[in-house]
Amino acid sequence: MTELDALKKRIAPLFPGLMGVDLVEVSPERVVGKMLVRPDLATSGNTLHGGAYMAFADTLGAVGTVVNLPPGARTTTTDSSTKFMAPAAVGTTVTGEATALHRGRTTMVWQTLIHNEAGKLCAVVTQTQLVMTDR
Amino acid sequence: MTELDALKKRIAPLFPGLMGVDLVEVSPERVVGKMLVRPDLATSGNTLHGGAYMAFADTLGAVGTVVNLPPGARTTTTDSSTKFMAPAAVGTTVTGEATALHRGRTTMVWQTLIHNEAGKLCAVVTQTQLVMTDR
Amino acid sequence: MTELDALKKRIAPLFPGLMGVDLVEVSPERVVGKMLVRPDLATSGNTLHGGAYMAFADTLGAVGTVVNLPPGARTTTTDSSTKFMAPAAVGTTVTGEATALHRGRTTMVWQTLIHNEAGKLCAVVTQTQLVMTDR
Amino acid sequence: MTELDALKKRIAPLFPGLMGVDLVEVSPERVVGKMLVRPDLATSGNTLHGGAYMAFADTLGAVGTVVNLPPGARTTTTDSSTKFMAPAAVGTTVTGEATALHRGRTTMVWQTLIHNEAGKLCAVVTQTQLVMTDR
Repeated sequence: MTELDALKKRIAPLFPGLMGVDLVEVSPERVVGKMLVRPDLATSGNTLHGGAYMAFADTLGAVGTVVNLPPGARTTTTDSSTKFMAPAAVGTTVTGEATALHRGRTTMVWQTLIHNEAGKLCAVVTQTQLVMTDR
Repeated sequence: MTELDALKKRIAPLFPGLMGVDLVEVSPERVVGKMLVRPDLATSGNTLHGGAYMAFADTLGAVGTVVNLPPGARTTTTDSSTKFMAPAAVGTTVTGEATALHRGRTTMVWQTLIHNEAGKLCAVVTQTQLVMTDR
Repeated sequence: MTELDALKKRIAPLFPGLMGVDLVEVSPERVVGKMLVRPDLATSGNTLHGGAYMAFADTLGAVGTVVNLPPGARTTTTDSSTKFMAPAAVGTTVTGEATALHRGRTTMVWQTLIHNEAGKLCAVVTQTQLVMTDR
Repeated sequence: MTELDALKKRIAPLFPGLMGVDLVEVSPERVVGKMLVRPDLATSGNTLHGGAYMAFADTLGAVGTVVNLPPGARTTTTDSSTKFMAPAAVGTTVTGEATALHRGRTTMVWQTLIHNEAGKLCAVVTQTQLVMTDR
């Protein structure tokens, strides 16, 4: 099983699975995912709910961190900041691309850009992941 | 139908409904909700997924803004910032309390504190809502 | 020399000194400071510059963390998020009150409310401080 | 007088002037500035104060917005979020590059990357600017 398949399997029974997050590409520098804007992921006005953008991005940034963790270490998000810029309509697919801004021993910072099908930037999510080792 | 019931009905078919967000109290100054930490809302380690905290809070802050909107106006979240501080285990219930920090003509700012069943503060979410009127 | 005096002396030659930050009260749970809105702290329109609010709050939250540090530990801000809500005019004084939302072994979270002389809430700053020990 | 010179002159008597922010390049898509890490801009440990990064970036993002404003409009920062990743030592110069992530009719979003002399990314600041027109 590839690392991508292992990660897909790991998140399937969790919140990303409920939302239908589809991991497309995983590397230590970059994680890409897709998500269909289902009606039950929407807010009023038939566009993707703000919380769904944030949960989608949180998943991609956490996956990126996991790929970079030293053996035995775990991670948790300590902070996440989002700017919302454009809507994504129900029935379309959004694409999220998370890239590492910082990969340190104690913290990692990932930024996710989420675009709609028209190629417009909908949201930018920047998150800090704490690296926890049992010492 | 009370305003609380109307709002419950409005969010039921949307993302908050998928997550099981339960509105408990709604006023112009304060919105309270509860959410059961289901396994399909979790991340690795059987605790509530970071994205689920953010989506829960985004819902409460948006509901609070809606309650304050002048007739004909709409709202969208432009920004959301979250600090994560403690976990909430699967099978327990989290409580979110959103209060208005600012209710202006153009923007409103809501802050949501999410506590776990043990009364520990798990996450703080501060969000800006843009008030849009068709002029 | 009291702890308050020691902290005042420590920040005087640094950026808070340049801005005229005046520490008023320091305890493990709460730090209060005042700052005169000088013309050289302003932005266009003769109101306090957004950056000055953030630097003022960053100072108070860091001082609060320092007061809580175990012997030999140091701290650095890893994240800071601010919402701006109202202006503060040149010639008036702003008051910042930082309270601890979380004081853990690895991170602390402080939130600073900044009010203007009229008692209006101008800005809310929430910041995460990493606690660093040499192990 | 070029637009760059006009903007330099405009910010000189204000907070950016106190800090020694030097505008290097201004266009509707990108604003670049430099700042010497003076001792009176530092925090403990002789590195640039977190608040100075934020104030530096806030200046660049606001300048970028001003360049894009329609006639008669004004702007104010409504939100700013920063991740800190690496220090910048006293006596060195930091470079900030602000780029527009979104330039809408109501809001603009600018992101500033601040690098130290060694080319390391020290801080990322993402801010929302409200566009205000008197209608």
